[in-house]
Amino acid sequence: MRPPRLGRLAGRATVRHADDSSLAGLLPAADVLLVWDFTSDAVRRAWPGAGPRPGWVHTASAGVDRLLFPELVHSPTLVTNARGVFDIPIAEYVAGLIIAMAREFPVSWDLQRRRVWRHRETRTVAGSRAVVVGSGGIGRETARTLRALRVTVDLVGRQERTADPEFGRVHPAGALPGLLPLADWVVCAAPLTPATRGMFDAAAFALMKEGARFVNVGRGAHVVETDLIAALRSGRLAGAALDVFAEEPLPAGSPLWELPGVLLSPHMSGDTPGWEQTLADQFLDNFDRWVAGEPLHQVVDKQLGYAAASGTEPGAGAGAGAATGDAGEEHTEDLPA
Amino acid sequence: MRPPRLGRLAGRATVRHADDSSLAGLLPAADVLLVWDFTSDAVRRAWPGAGPRPGWVHTASAGVDRLLFPELVHSPTLVTNARGVFDIPIAEYVAGLIIAMAREFPVSWDLQRRRVWRHRETRTVAGSRAVVVGSGGIGRETARTLRALRVTVDLVGRQERTADPEFGRVHPAGALPGLLPLADWVVCAAPLTPATRGMFDAAAFALMKEGARFVNVGRGAHVVETDLIAALRSGRLAGAALDVFAEEPLPAGSPLWELPGVLLSPHMSGDTPGWEQTLADQFLDNFDRWVAGEPLHQVVDKQLGYAAASGTEPGAGAGAGAATGDAGEEHTEDLPA
Repeated sequence: MRPPRLGRLAGRATVRHADDSSLAGLLPAADVLLVWDFTSDAVRRAWPGAGPRPGWVHTASAGVDRLLFPELVHSPTLVTNARGVFDIPIAEYVAGLIIAMAREFPVSWDLQRRRVWRHRETRTVAGSRAVVVGSGGIGRETARTLRALRVTVDLVGRQERTADPEFGRVHPAGALPGLLPLADWVVCAAPLTPATRGMFDAAAFALMKEGARFVNVGRGAHVVETDLIAALRSGRLAGAALDVFAEEPLPAGSPLWELPGVLLSPHMSGDTPGWEQTLADQFLDNFDRWVAGEPLHQVVDKQLGYAAASGTEPGAGAGAGAATGDAGEEHTEDLPA
Repeated sequence: MRPPRLGRLAGRATVRHADDSSLAGLLPAADVLLVWDFTSDAVRRAWPGAGPRPGWVHTASAGVDRLLFPELVHSPTLVTNARGVFDIPIAEYVAGLIIAMAREFPVSWDLQRRRVWRHRETRTVAGSRAVVVGSGGIGRETARTLRALRVTVDLVGRQERTADPEFGRVHPAGALPGLLPLADWVVCAAPLTPATRGMFDAAAFALMKEGARFVNVGRGAHVVETDLIAALRSGRLAGAALDVFAEEPLPAGSPLWELPGVLLSPHMSGDTPGWEQTLADQFLDNFDRWVAGEPLHQVVDKQLGYAAASGTEPGAGAGAGAATGDAGEEHTEDLPA
């Protein structure tokens, strides 16, 4: 799994491909680190305790949770992410899952397999109500799409915003307990931070409306899976659609595979043909800015744990090297600096 | 299957419930006919060849195809339908089917049953292109919903409109052969008329893009099913989502049940909890207009075969009786006129 398009760096950077075992040796000499395998903890393990470190780390993912270990958070290193790439793919995926659950597509297709014709009445998503947790690009696009389907959406972010140009009000995280009982659909599209880790636990599920359904396109660690399973088994939740899991791939022994009302997919809601090219281009565009000393885009607020707005932080001058962190393989290409 | 809410007629009409065998005897004395079972051909069989006939027939369905036999078309009897009730339910259903096919929900859920984790990249509906055939309420709402999902939509009606306030251009039926090759999605939401019956045949499927998918929420008779099956088997069509069929319930022996890429549902795309109340209220609101001598709503253009616009035709004065046509049962209620 090598990033495509790095030929654009030819003549401008020495590119070294690293894996889990070689990364520690390469990092002290790297100006820039591209994290291509965002599921790897290699960066945390390899991060230099002292001495020279990359001035900029870019992760080809929306989530930055694996990068925000204390040593990196408290270093001067800039972190950028793939903000924006996944917004529309994930938003329409969520919309499709909600329609599928409301209109009982899985039931129809199960009946189809048995050649059974059984007419039912199913509730429209129009007129239903959703809470979308996460007011970044993915959460906002999800809210926008659900509103177009005539769903009433409460958008929840970290902090309250009362004059949002599109949504009017963005609710603060503290408002969630008051919103959960109203929602037919609860969608997690939040960044994984210490404040959001495990936020969907027994207490949260107990607040949800009887028969509500939960959708997770954030991170598995947003959810206490045993609590989710209990809420599904008790019937409080009518169902859940999960694209992310505490452990990925989902272990074969997980009860989630077979729980009634649970729809699974393998962490693919944002992944479309050409996504790797798009991700690589996003890094490379930032690399051009870095080399030119211009502000990088998609800069992550390391305290908040996500890219809070279009980046405005300056790059650190002419970079001369890049190391890509990839836990899967090791490869070195030397390009003239 | 008795219409609800007819208590609203108390004191204003004599209500007689009819079935296939009793309808012919009741029709000559009826001022108004409510067709509740729109799948029945009872009206055609029972329609009086001469003498007194109802002045107004309302069908609790969007499609009026079973009512537009020559004797009724050429009579002065007004026909109204359930225009509007199904627009939003069907539009979101179609949107959900298209997302499900694009994003491979059926594949994911098949893998789930086998406890297989297999990541794939799937194409977004955003950026794809659809042809929606049928520019009535259902087709327009479907087009509106797909556009909100960032799909490019060509809306096709009977006649060209170049200054449509919402869509700009509505293409005439004659433009369809030029549009089919461009579409990733072809959606049939048309009224069934002599002009549209069998319009999706081998010639139409041959014009569609390799790998296109077909969605039918119109009527089964829009499609030459053997031609559709051949187009699916040849691989020209990657799939189809069908809610309506030439014969309903779909016969157990139909190859459609098991064709790869085919998603079936039992004519339910518009049917939501409370729909029967909504349908009954729509008739009863029109009944109030009829009694008051006001123009009825949802008047069907019997030549065109659908309700072309909000009705403006006058009712025919104070009606004193209503007969409901229902092929399933016979019942008579006498209410003081």
